[in-house]
Amino acid sequence: MLLAAARGEPVAWTPVWFMRQAGRSLPEYRALREGLAMLDSCTRPDVVTEITLQPVRRYGVDAAILYSDIMVPLKAIGVDLDIVPGVGPVLAHPVRSLADLDQLRELTEQDVPYVTEAIASVVGELGATPLIGFAGAPFTLACYLVEGGPSRDHARTKAMMYGAPELWDALMTRLAGIAREFLRIQVVAGASAVQLFDSWAGVLPPAAYERSVLPYSRAVLGALAETGVPRMHFGVGTGELLGLMGQAGAEVVGVDFRVALDEAARRLGPDHSVQGNLDPALVDAPWPVVAAEVRAMLRAGRAARGHIANLGHGVLPDTDPDALARIVDLVHSETVQ
Amino acid sequence: MLLAAARGEPVAWTPVWFMRQAGRSLPEYRALREGLAMLDSCTRPDVVTEITLQPVRRYGVDAAILYSDIMVPLKAIGVDLDIVPGVGPVLAHPVRSLADLDQLRELTEQDVPYVTEAIASVVGELGATPLIGFAGAPFTLACYLVEGGPSRDHARTKAMMYGAPELWDALMTRLAGIAREFLRIQVVAGASAVQLFDSWAGVLPPAAYERSVLPYSRAVLGALAETGVPRMHFGVGTGELLGLMGQAGAEVVGVDFRVALDEAARRLGPDHSVQGNLDPALVDAPWPVVAAEVRAMLRAGRAARGHIANLGHGVLPDTDPDALARIVDLVHSETVQ
Repeated sequence: MLLAAARGEPVAWTPVWFMRQAGRSLPEYRALREGLAMLDSCTRPDVVTEITLQPVRRYGVDAAILYSDIMVPLKAIGVDLDIVPGVGPVLAHPVRSLADLDQLRELTEQDVPYVTEAIASVVGELGATPLIGFAGAPFTLACYLVEGGPSRDHARTKAMMYGAPELWDALMTRLAGIAREFLRIQVVAGASAVQLFDSWAGVLPPAAYERSVLPYSRAVLGALAETGVPRMHFGVGTGELLGLMGQAGAEVVGVDFRVALDEAARRLGPDHSVQGNLDPALVDAPWPVVAAEVRAMLRAGRAARGHIANLGHGVLPDTDPDALARIVDLVHSETVQ
Repeated sequence: MLLAAARGEPVAWTPVWFMRQAGRSLPEYRALREGLAMLDSCTRPDVVTEITLQPVRRYGVDAAILYSDIMVPLKAIGVDLDIVPGVGPVLAHPVRSLADLDQLRELTEQDVPYVTEAIASVVGELGATPLIGFAGAPFTLACYLVEGGPSRDHARTKAMMYGAPELWDALMTRLAGIAREFLRIQVVAGASAVQLFDSWAGVLPPAAYERSVLPYSRAVLGALAETGVPRMHFGVGTGELLGLMGQAGAEVVGVDFRVALDEAARRLGPDHSVQGNLDPALVDAPWPVVAAEVRAMLRAGRAARGHIANLGHGVLPDTDPDALARIVDLVHSETVQ
């Protein structure tokens, strides 16, 4: 159902899944992660398989998304980084010069055997439910590499983008290659769709995005065309960039909760499906409020050629899993033909 | 010049000032703040006067903005809070129930004598240059009060907004009263314009903003109409909300760096002037890059009935003051009639 909606083909019901459904709020996930560091957990095929399947069992969602992290391919090629609980990714040696790019060699399948193995095992268990593979987009990876960790204003990254275009191009070209290979490896292993997360793209003015980011995202998504799997592309706070993001090559553009889906469809034109976009903070509101918002989202989503229901950002850590399950049921019952 | 541009009247040149120009990146500011906590510095009229005047001397900007903080009126009525360096405002007793609202009594002039005194002194020094007074908008203040400090997803605030509308209304009504009085006190003391900062409004979907935030911002700005001073209204990441924010009663709507000013003018219609919107991270780029962006901003700003040049967010802490001075000179030389 997800693949048909992604391609704008007729669907028997509106498919639904949740960004960050694998992990975060599920008690069975927390139990499994006990004593296991984030990046370590991503390299254990048995753990990845189980966490990827947990939300499918719980919610009856129309897709699984691989349990992983956008920093996994960088860690796999030897970048010295850690994911610090409560902080986020922290790098030992931030990228500030051409010499710092030596950290970023090409990614090959041999670097991530656990990903290939986990996907084979997940796909075997999933049956007809598709698995979504994913990667961080070049700009979002660049933000972490240049800042050295999470940042509010991304000042160093923007300074490089505006002030050192050759270094920027060299960095973004390497990151595009890594993201492309990481997605290709996941598709070869069995993923039925891919999502390129440009989480931080929304911090850029449209002209800067078009000049300094879009070409590299397009290189990633364009190279995936030959695989034939639907490509999805998403960033937070990207309302002003939707038209440009639609030019990056994805069949589906994810919409954050700040833009109604009919307005997003207008900005994207008739050649894209949309994905989204309930406010994650709304999920735990009283059920009548949630149900009204779900119905409004489904109504607005009809303006696009296809709609994959989702949140407009990742599941929040304190979200009640039962609330997500009720949303899945409502999306299905409201849209079944 | 700023007041004329705010009202859409003819100007001899495009006025320019910078959000957060008072404080942050100036070395003479850092020297003055040495050993003085943020909220303490805001209650010292001599310090406030000096910090407010520093950027006017340095840059030749067309307006001063009072050195203060959006938490000052809350601290003044006895809310137990502190501004922790590197973190932000932190509250001892976050608002979670009706009883917690007892912290929020009405603000009177007697609560902030240092503000009145500082403004009198600043205005005496400024001569013809106008002073902008400011306050935090009800929603942004509510975010800090409900979360208890800075937050990435504002989940508790949104949970109250979506799930406890009566408590939300009681909280927002009190905060609107406080913001209104804080602005009125500043105008009575001598401020020539006011800006209502709804820094966090951009985290809301438009429908939620319209229902649960706009009425309270309108109450604040509407009550200021009788003073006759121009009212300005700004929030970060508010591209999707510009049309609605324009209905809150301000003559000028600030635009963040994500939306070109001509597009912002289209969303706002002919009854508003615009303010903004260089990317603060661009300021330290090589001068040819900055100059091109300043010219593009001035061109786009001509689409509005009036334009006050500014950044599209506050000055970043590491910004080079000389870069800001060059921008002021360029804005003036490019636009002088």
